[in-house]
Amino acid sequence: MTKLRKIWDAGKPSLNAWCSIGNAFTAEIMAAQGFDSVTVDMQHGALDYSDLLPMLQAMRGSGATLLARVPWLDPAHVMKALDAGAEGIICPMVNTGDEAAALVSYMRYPPHGTRSFGPTRAAFAHGAGYAETANARLLAFAMVETAEGFANLDAIAATPGLDGIYVGPTDLTLSLSAGRLAPKLDRDEPEMVAALQRIAAACQAHGIIAALHCGTADYANRAIGWGYRMVTVGGDTRFLSAAAAAAVAEFRSLSGTTATEATRAAY
Amino acid sequence: MTKLRKIWDAGKPSLNAWCSIGNAFTAEIMAAQGFDSVTVDMQHGALDYSDLLPMLQAMRGSGATLLARVPWLDPAHVMKALDAGAEGIICPMVNTGDEAAALVSYMRYPPHGTRSFGPTRAAFAHGAGYAETANARLLAFAMVETAEGFANLDAIAATPGLDGIYVGPTDLTLSLSAGRLAPKLDRDEPEMVAALQRIAAACQAHGIIAALHCGTADYANRAIGWGYRMVTVGGDTRFLSAAAAAAVAEFRSLSGTTATEATRAAY
Amino acid sequence: MTKLRKIWDAGKPSLNAWCSIGNAFTAEIMAAQGFDSVTVDMQHGALDYSDLLPMLQAMRGSGATLLARVPWLDPAHVMKALDAGAEGIICPMVNTGDEAAALVSYMRYPPHGTRSFGPTRAAFAHGAGYAETANARLLAFAMVETAEGFANLDAIAATPGLDGIYVGPTDLTLSLSAGRLAPKLDRDEPEMVAALQRIAAACQAHGIIAALHCGTADYANRAIGWGYRMVTVGGDTRFLSAAAAAAVAEFRSLSGTTATEATRAAY
Amino acid sequence: MTKLRKIWDAGKPSLNAWCSIGNAFTAEIMAAQGFDSVTVDMQHGALDYSDLLPMLQAMRGSGATLLARVPWLDPAHVMKALDAGAEGIICPMVNTGDEAAALVSYMRYPPHGTRSFGPTRAAFAHGAGYAETANARLLAFAMVETAEGFANLDAIAATPGLDGIYVGPTDLTLSLSAGRLAPKLDRDEPEMVAALQRIAAACQAHGIIAALHCGTADYANRAIGWGYRMVTVGGDTRFLSAAAAAAVAEFRSLSGTTATEATRAAY
Amino acid sequence: MTKLRKIWDAGKPSLNAWCSIGNAFTAEIMAAQGFDSVTVDMQHGALDYSDLLPMLQAMRGSGATLLARVPWLDPAHVMKALDAGAEGIICPMVNTGDEAAALVSYMRYPPHGTRSFGPTRAAFAHGAGYAETANARLLAFAMVETAEGFANLDAIAATPGLDGIYVGPTDLTLSLSAGRLAPKLDRDEPEMVAALQRIAAACQAHGIIAALHCGTADYANRAIGWGYRMVTVGGDTRFLSAAAAAAVAEFRSLSGTTATEATRAAY
Amino acid sequence: MTKLRKIWDAGKPSLNAWCSIGNAFTAEIMAAQGFDSVTVDMQHGALDYSDLLPMLQAMRGSGATLLARVPWLDPAHVMKALDAGAEGIICPMVNTGDEAAALVSYMRYPPHGTRSFGPTRAAFAHGAGYAETANARLLAFAMVETAEGFANLDAIAATPGLDGIYVGPTDLTLSLSAGRLAPKLDRDEPEMVAALQRIAAACQAHGIIAALHCGTADYANRAIGWGYRMVTVGGDTRFLSAAAAAAVAEFRSLSGTTATEATRAAY
Repeated sequence: MTKLRKIWDAGKPSLNAWCSIGNAFTAEIMAAQGFDSVTVDMQHGALDYSDLLPMLQAMRGSGATLLARVPWLDPAHVMKALDAGAEGIICPMVNTGDEAAALVSYMRYPPHGTRSFGPTRAAFAHGAGYAETANARLLAFAMVETAEGFANLDAIAATPGLDGIYVGPTDLTLSLSAGRLAPKLDRDEPEMVAALQRIAAACQAHGIIAALHCGTADYANRAIGWGYRMVTVGGDTRFLSAAAAAAVAEFRSLSGTTATEATRAAY
Repeated sequence: MTKLRKIWDAGKPSLNAWCSIGNAFTAEIMAAQGFDSVTVDMQHGALDYSDLLPMLQAMRGSGATLLARVPWLDPAHVMKALDAGAEGIICPMVNTGDEAAALVSYMRYPPHGTRSFGPTRAAFAHGAGYAETANARLLAFAMVETAEGFANLDAIAATPGLDGIYVGPTDLTLSLSAGRLAPKLDRDEPEMVAALQRIAAACQAHGIIAALHCGTADYANRAIGWGYRMVTVGGDTRFLSAAAAAAVAEFRSLSGTTATEATRAAY
Repeated sequence: MTKLRKIWDAGKPSLNAWCSIGNAFTAEIMAAQGFDSVTVDMQHGALDYSDLLPMLQAMRGSGATLLARVPWLDPAHVMKALDAGAEGIICPMVNTGDEAAALVSYMRYPPHGTRSFGPTRAAFAHGAGYAETANARLLAFAMVETAEGFANLDAIAATPGLDGIYVGPTDLTLSLSAGRLAPKLDRDEPEMVAALQRIAAACQAHGIIAALHCGTADYANRAIGWGYRMVTVGGDTRFLSAAAAAAVAEFRSLSGTTATEATRAAY
Repeated sequence: MTKLRKIWDAGKPSLNAWCSIGNAFTAEIMAAQGFDSVTVDMQHGALDYSDLLPMLQAMRGSGATLLARVPWLDPAHVMKALDAGAEGIICPMVNTGDEAAALVSYMRYPPHGTRSFGPTRAAFAHGAGYAETANARLLAFAMVETAEGFANLDAIAATPGLDGIYVGPTDLTLSLSAGRLAPKLDRDEPEMVAALQRIAAACQAHGIIAALHCGTADYANRAIGWGYRMVTVGGDTRFLSAAAAAAVAEFRSLSGTTATEATRAAY
Repeated sequence: MTKLRKIWDAGKPSLNAWCSIGNAFTAEIMAAQGFDSVTVDMQHGALDYSDLLPMLQAMRGSGATLLARVPWLDPAHVMKALDAGAEGIICPMVNTGDEAAALVSYMRYPPHGTRSFGPTRAAFAHGAGYAETANARLLAFAMVETAEGFANLDAIAATPGLDGIYVGPTDLTLSLSAGRLAPKLDRDEPEMVAALQRIAAACQAHGIIAALHCGTADYANRAIGWGYRMVTVGGDTRFLSAAAAAAVAEFRSLSGTTATEATRAAY
Repeated sequence: MTKLRKIWDAGKPSLNAWCSIGNAFTAEIMAAQGFDSVTVDMQHGALDYSDLLPMLQAMRGSGATLLARVPWLDPAHVMKALDAGAEGIICPMVNTGDEAAALVSYMRYPPHGTRSFGPTRAAFAHGAGYAETANARLLAFAMVETAEGFANLDAIAATPGLDGIYVGPTDLTLSLSAGRLAPKLDRDEPEMVAALQRIAAACQAHGIIAALHCGTADYANRAIGWGYRMVTVGGDTRFLSAAAAAAVAEFRSLSGTTATEATRAAY
């Protein structure tokens, strides 16, 4: 059983870290900070499979459950991430129950799915018994983050074998508001809060995990109050840039100097 | 003229960033935060030349002056870093005036030194005129961080062509105290403060730049009061780990959960 | 606004470079030669995403508009290239108006498309305001290079949000001639010249940019006469191999020596 | 003509090696051992395109025919592997005649298929004449390894332009037995032996090559008796781990010592 | 205390693995086979620091003590390997007591040596307390493998802080026999056996560990009888090539086929 | 015997290529153009050992003799390049006969030198017999490119086991003129021509090969008239940038357009 499953079975919420930097050392640093799980973002992260593999290797000794967000619902992406040792998949832009079922199918060996057998590194990382336990142990998260996905929420949540729904609030907001609301995490608009609560409720109704991508610990804690059982609080790029920017600002203030050139802003 | 030289000529102190992660994207993030210079640490950083090159490329457009700390006083290290486009070298463990002179020699074309000509990438990065301007423009910093180096401080500071002395307070403390004082930055012991002040004074006396590696903006600002004209405040690994650890702690506190496994501590 | 758009708005044709070598230094060299744009070829180039990222980083300071040709019409390829900082996409083998619409959709945030939000490096490379400007600024080029695509030329050219059609004359010739005409650029056959002129005309009719992959400056200049507004003249592999071969030939001729082994020919 | 084709034309079976480690030196070692062909496994191997390219380069001088197993039936995967210099493709999970036809189409230039022209490295690796000979020379293998594929065996085997069927007995067994039989190679169950013989017979009937993935030389030799003309015997991860484990075991036995910690088992 | 030290303190010999392939997955496979330690060979291995780092990361969870053989006695090599997380250093071609003392000095913080402080990854890998324990915990092995080193055996063995002598029998034989005896491991010549026994005796006399590089478990076991307390039996390149060659030979024999081209031999 | 030795024994001059780009594909392209040898420049090239290895692998099948210029006279650099498969070493900045003797010593196994045995990849690349033939076959070139080296020309040329002197005219000019003459290849100053002729004569007198780094085929041919037997004509960065710049210039001229931004100049 993964560490995440143990936490959830104990009735606790889990805390997830997010890695967008394609580097095994930043991954190792992140995995050492006390998160329950770490997700390598192959979709929006500045990385691909060639980074995922050493990142998973570097985090193997950390005790955290290691997940991968794949770039898209594609069997090649899903199966390669699992064979590399990921203990779960977060799949973006799942819009229908059929898509959620496809995700599950790609992750399970027959008769529960169509995953091709060849856990080349996974078997070294997870040891004997991988073949027997993988179907039950690997975590499948579908992302609901579009208007279409939201409309099909119950069909998605009812997918047999699906472990949870991971919500990307930025995309969900862009899609539900048709671009009217600006992209950011930690939504306070009543309609968005209601949407997020509705997803948590659907997950609870179907006995699966609701997970939310957050920007602050405070918002994450509010989400737990809504029924979310897994939350992400920030990621490596934001941690690094925010801490560096704060150090610069503090020094500039103390020393009375100014940056001699305008700094580039970033999300 | 480099950006650093312009700042110093204007009588201002400069703020330096420190990169120990071997990754071009973390370098790009660091270079975007408003530091005046960024140093890639080839000595203690988890990186080597194969990382330095793409890091320098990724930071080229940032406007910051790009420096490299070499692993050791070795002409191969120094010259390869310069040919890759570094605009200055910080050399560790310089113990004598002869060693400082060797550093300068490796960085200057004849008749001012023995650098071999072949600025393969540097010429693309810095454009026409590199050959004519490199000797005057590239910054040479010797690190004084041993008892022997401290004893030879004036000989080092008097080295023709040397641009500054960069102080590594951790090593200097370990060496001056013969291991009695624990390794850390931002020393408060009177004897260490005196030593740091003495180095700043020697630099001023010889018309070169005193630079100090610091752990906080507050200490860096104090160092400027002692005559330091370039300060480093933290680096990428510390920014990343501290910010991530803070987010974990805040969430654990708000949610009343605890990390289910002990977290590994780190420097 | 990208540099390319400024050139076109001024009524000028633009000159594009082509990178098939997966290396940040060759990219940096190419971007320093005065091209208006540089395209990294993820389809036929000897490279993938793990090369695209450092290549974009190395070229960031060059001033050229940076494009990526993706391997295929796939949202994962398109969105990852954009998140890495590409300012436009050239998509191969677009055969129908629906495919062109899918390309546009993958490149635009709601409500103009279905691009998922997370411009991880793009936001650092392009600075504040990325979210607000990306939909309008990023360039979408569909390649018309099959008989089917040529038959659907007007439907493709009429796709809302499409910025231009990029013509691959080698594939187009192979497809239109059913393999009868040998693969090469710079076609002189009347039927191929007519086809190329027809594409330029369709683009003009729909107010979009016609772009052509050429092998020589002379042919590129002819293409401008036909209405093409963006032309590519050769690429890195051809520049390198042709220049090296010419040096060998010249030396062999001058010195009266011969290569002691037959040289392998290449396209 | 590839080395494989020459062997088959001479009525001999060929011996294939399997590379799952993403490293050019392990590939070079494998290619030096006297195999007739070497396959780089992009599906289950711990590698991707960024490894395939240097592996193909390192094996170029070996004389072995170099194949790639792609991760999935996707034109981007197939065409990129060919452009990188692979002399043949093994495509997993081909379930229908249409899928087999799609594979062939992705591998052949018009009029025999829809492959896009741009053999960037392949032309350097294989020399002049690539364009003229590629359609006939590149080997297309469809994997039959699902119940659906087995049911459509004759339709797949009859696909024009297909050179052979490569059997993955582990997946085939999982699928045909609906997960009842455990995943492993070298099946002895009568129903699986019959299935393997049926595939060999279908290949013979359609004049194409039957190929089988085996775990031992002994089983491979039996397969030749059933009509298989290409066999794989083990791969790099298994060779390395088995030989290392044997050395450890022998030393532990001779010296009377024991491993102080349990060793992780692996497939 | 490292695992090696615990084994030796218990009066047992330890078994070491040797990695010459620059790849984190082969390292992970090697570290999973039950060796007590794994050495990454930066001298003769086909790898450098850029491979050492991910290899150490991938093996972190294995429980084996992780060593690095550096390319030469150079503070940059030694200190970078330690900062990357190596728990011990094997230094080639140590010829004098002074050289052995230099090695020790590079590995110890003041007052026991001159190592510069900055255990960037080591501190993450080994956790809190690294600074306090590193001097006592990190293992220093000098290689005696030249006639000069052999002549200075006692001076080397008497070096304060040295943990052991690692014998490279191939170089030692080449040097002692002035090239008369061919390079290979597992020497049977009486003069070489005597030399190896003499080194073991000197180590015992000085209370340090004698270690021997062997080619077979049988020879390694004999060496233990001579007083060696750490033995290496083969390495990754040999394991891989020997196992692959054996599989080829077995299949060729069973099937009555022959390799169609001569195979390249290798050491 | 290497291809170079065969050419020289036949009384012919050889043509060398120069690789400064750290990429296996550019190396493969260069090696395909009919040069007799290819040198990977580890000193000034934008590459290090991690690039050398795949470059040597990619060029293995080319038939050209593969050389490495090491960054400095250092046994670690020399021995690692040879173990990786280089068939010869060009060592920069050799100033004395003792330094030339050290270079030779690092390249030869006892009793002819002090090279450590472990040709890990070299043995795979060069096959059986490597141990017996390496001492005689590997080519040792000392660079004479400083005033001191020029003053010690005869002592260097007389070094037993040295195969040739490779002249770097840029550094030699900078050093002999004490920086008065600007750095470039292909010197026409009478004193430099005389110096180059003097080196060729010294080589002839000592029966070794004189080699010259040139910028044009014409100058290279003149050098052969002076007694040079190996010449380099340009390198990859220059070939690539010059050919690209020429294409840009031609198109700008034909189309009457201008680059919209100033282009960066480069050496």
